[in-house]
Amino acid sequence: MRLPPNVKAESFSEALKQFEQAVGKEWVFSSEEDIDLYRDSYTPFWHEEEEPIPSAAVAPSSTEEVQKVVRIANSHKIPLWIISTGKNLGYGGPAPLLGGSIVLDLKRMNRVLEVDERNHCALVEPGVSYFDLYRYIQERGLKVMVDVPDPGWGSVMGNALDRGVGYGPFRDHFDSHCGLEVVLPNGELLRTGMGALPGAKTWQQYKYGYGPSIDGLFCQSSLGVVTKMGFYLYPQPEAFRAGSVTVPKRQDIVPLVDTVNYLVNSGIAQGQFQISNALASPFGPPDLELANLLAKPGGPSTEELERYGAEKNLGYWSTMLKFYGPQDVIDAQWNYAKKKFSSIPGVRFKEEAKYTFPIDPKMVEQIPHLADLGIPNLSIFGIGVRPQRPMSYGHLWFSPIIPATGEAILEVTDVLTKAFRELGVPMPLGSIFPISFFPRTFVLIFGMEVEHNVAKNREMRDKFRKMVKIASEHGWGEYRTPTAFMSDVMDVYSFNNHALRRFHETIKDAVDPNGILAPGKAGIWPKSMRKERA
Amino acid sequence: MRLPPNVKAESFSEALKQFEQAVGKEWVFSSEEDIDLYRDSYTPFWHEEEEPIPSAAVAPSSTEEVQKVVRIANSHKIPLWIISTGKNLGYGGPAPLLGGSIVLDLKRMNRVLEVDERNHCALVEPGVSYFDLYRYIQERGLKVMVDVPDPGWGSVMGNALDRGVGYGPFRDHFDSHCGLEVVLPNGELLRTGMGALPGAKTWQQYKYGYGPSIDGLFCQSSLGVVTKMGFYLYPQPEAFRAGSVTVPKRQDIVPLVDTVNYLVNSGIAQGQFQISNALASPFGPPDLELANLLAKPGGPSTEELERYGAEKNLGYWSTMLKFYGPQDVIDAQWNYAKKKFSSIPGVRFKEEAKYTFPIDPKMVEQIPHLADLGIPNLSIFGIGVRPQRPMSYGHLWFSPIIPATGEAILEVTDVLTKAFRELGVPMPLGSIFPISFFPRTFVLIFGMEVEHNVAKNREMRDKFRKMVKIASEHGWGEYRTPTAFMSDVMDVYSFNNHALRRFHETIKDAVDPNGILAPGKAGIWPKSMRKERA
Repeated sequence: MRLPPNVKAESFSEALKQFEQAVGKEWVFSSEEDIDLYRDSYTPFWHEEEEPIPSAAVAPSSTEEVQKVVRIANSHKIPLWIISTGKNLGYGGPAPLLGGSIVLDLKRMNRVLEVDERNHCALVEPGVSYFDLYRYIQERGLKVMVDVPDPGWGSVMGNALDRGVGYGPFRDHFDSHCGLEVVLPNGELLRTGMGALPGAKTWQQYKYGYGPSIDGLFCQSSLGVVTKMGFYLYPQPEAFRAGSVTVPKRQDIVPLVDTVNYLVNSGIAQGQFQISNALASPFGPPDLELANLLAKPGGPSTEELERYGAEKNLGYWSTMLKFYGPQDVIDAQWNYAKKKFSSIPGVRFKEEAKYTFPIDPKMVEQIPHLADLGIPNLSIFGIGVRPQRPMSYGHLWFSPIIPATGEAILEVTDVLTKAFRELGVPMPLGSIFPISFFPRTFVLIFGMEVEHNVAKNREMRDKFRKMVKIASEHGWGEYRTPTAFMSDVMDVYSFNNHALRRFHETIKDAVDPNGILAPGKAGIWPKSMRKERA
Repeated sequence: MRLPPNVKAESFSEALKQFEQAVGKEWVFSSEEDIDLYRDSYTPFWHEEEEPIPSAAVAPSSTEEVQKVVRIANSHKIPLWIISTGKNLGYGGPAPLLGGSIVLDLKRMNRVLEVDERNHCALVEPGVSYFDLYRYIQERGLKVMVDVPDPGWGSVMGNALDRGVGYGPFRDHFDSHCGLEVVLPNGELLRTGMGALPGAKTWQQYKYGYGPSIDGLFCQSSLGVVTKMGFYLYPQPEAFRAGSVTVPKRQDIVPLVDTVNYLVNSGIAQGQFQISNALASPFGPPDLELANLLAKPGGPSTEELERYGAEKNLGYWSTMLKFYGPQDVIDAQWNYAKKKFSSIPGVRFKEEAKYTFPIDPKMVEQIPHLADLGIPNLSIFGIGVRPQRPMSYGHLWFSPIIPATGEAILEVTDVLTKAFRELGVPMPLGSIFPISFFPRTFVLIFGMEVEHNVAKNREMRDKFRKMVKIASEHGWGEYRTPTAFMSDVMDVYSFNNHALRRFHETIKDAVDPNGILAPGKAGIWPKSMRKERA
């Protein structure tokens, strides 16, 4: 029997019994087969002692049951690791950070509590997936759009609480939340914003309530179990259109990004976009001519690449902008965008997808990227997008935030290309494609491959840590990271001798003195474990 | 000599001497004349013992000096009340909540540290007013727009930290902030978001950094002294236009608000708007015919008011929408808005102001509402807008959040009209005009008049407290309140036996164990004073 750290077998058995009383015998899992489901299938600790395997899992069906579970865990000082649906692939999946933790699995709390069509918002429980919420809306014909990520099986709440993102105007999912219900580490129930005012009908409309706003404390957090969360939804638009922009020269990236910033910061274009190297898709190998060019000793010159891009009619950089709204408005927006870009010599435009809402269900099969339209799906797992290298058993996302300037993208490309080469990390041309997950910055996102090979995984973990360091030395920090590296990432947010982490620790100790909730999450350890983890 | 509560004269004198060493003799104020400047000119405690008068004020010029001041205050357990420019009229002005506090006046820290024209953001110190920031931008010809409130002399940071609002697309000023530097109660310096990563160039671009987001803790807060704050700015748009919409029937308010919600939640219209009773301006008396109608025993019927509105070509309700962006886009947006409203029988539209940017300085004199265009001004204090009643010496804002539905506006109108009549609060027709200070809700805002009359002020304070209660019983809670009523307002945010306040108290005690920063702010009292205040 696996045990939680510093917990005696007797106490653990007693706790399991109490959990069974609280949630029902069939919802406490401690057999090997059941626990296997709470392991990370992309774990970088495959076949290693260090793999953080839970000692058990417990799945309550209501807020009251969550309160009971938390109180029981507290009385035995058993660490809980909280998951909504556990689909956080590439960042740890359903597995705890600390081996032996009990997984508090909220999948049974899967009720859509409200969708308000007149003011475009929703209130959901943790287990509600994007599919669930979408289905709820479609069945009732409600004219609202959910902002969805790839893929759609994850939890709406869990994604937002992990600072996940989507594709449309409300792609910053934590930012588009409004109102929380939280079970605190002592089992007490708290509501934030207008939820604190009994009878208020604005819980999902007004974010702040009165006094300091504490919602941010529960994002990427170990301070509470969120049991209800509100979200702003986008009103169903009349139409969608997209258009792509290609520029011919390497240095054109500077005006390209500046112009995109103007358009997006003004609200003229909406949703996620990315800056791509037009010479290469991130997926698949380049053509032979380009491959030869890239294989030249010392690499190709900028001029050679620009000439290749011109000959092949590819250009050098490209981006695709998206527009949601009334047809006349989005047509005017795209026309204005083209006018703004036209100061870049040699710029070219291409009309991309156009749709009107509601989307005809018969058309759905033909839409290449459903997430743009708020339609949850699993096409990211389709056979056509599987990596070409058969050795990959999973990946860990390395995902730093970089400035939204052309200069920064060029600098990042140079620095990371060099670093990756030195570290021996394979990096195909075009694998640096900054994405606007969030407003006004880019996220770079690289999948570091996991294998079923202990030595290689150890090496990879070491490389991952080095990449976190190298990025931080240039001012680039991860927005989110796999559980295995949470302390490493928090470590580089070190201003004034780690003042931020020390502040987090002060709060953690005050709110969760026994340190039972998600110890180590975001690199914040409770008092009792802080020294040994340092 | 006035003393801070529970502080001996000796300790106080010693502290003043230490403050002088820290910031210079001329920046510590303890004479009666100097202290008078830190009294609230709109105080509801005029001529009363209870008026919270500070014992002194201290004005540091740098973050390092703020740290010294906070450490000195901590060592003597002297409460500090923090102001940026102290222009918070109607909510307490520069005066502390607790008499005898020392005002920490940040007016000398008035440097604009950065304005980024390419990614539309700024970093400022606390003493930077809207005028300062606007002047900085104009002098350099930068193509960004600041979102300004009425009036423009206040602090950009102070307004945001008090959850103040403006008029344009970024009118929720706290929401448009990005990145804080904070002196904690122990004197330690903290940076939030990407500011925690040394060398990051995205402090004013990416809000979250890594781990839980703590920024909200410093809004309407007593947990730290914010010494730097970043803001998103709006890129200078090509044009602005406004259009008003009038509907003829009382019940038309329901589709009117639903349609506005659709447009604003979609981003098709931007900035603040309000729903007005078209029969009456909030300023000035109604015409004689309407006055007679209103004076009818039992009041006029809905039909009579609708008939009067139709005869006078006024309609019943009206709103004005605003559009910022490229000319073709905003024209298409306004056209679409008219199409959406046209399902309301009898709806009428009026073209309002149109401008192109940059605004010609010669035109500024003719623009009725400069704040819409991001131009700070003091016209709100102009002689033409002074209240008609000569007895008014100031006002206290009563400002609850209500749902953004027509039904809620009708309910609020009924409830408050009745309550105000019973309380004897004068309430002219049209004084209920819900404003969209924040997205997806309305704020009602009433100025309760202060007089130089002790008995009347006592009565008024009593009425204010009753209004807070009455509103809360209907689910409406203040978003912000004068210092005199902070505890009353926090009191109604009482879900689960005041779980939110107890959570705030836990954090307060952990972060500020001596309770020296702004005791009582937002109804949160430090441990040492909690019992006596209960």
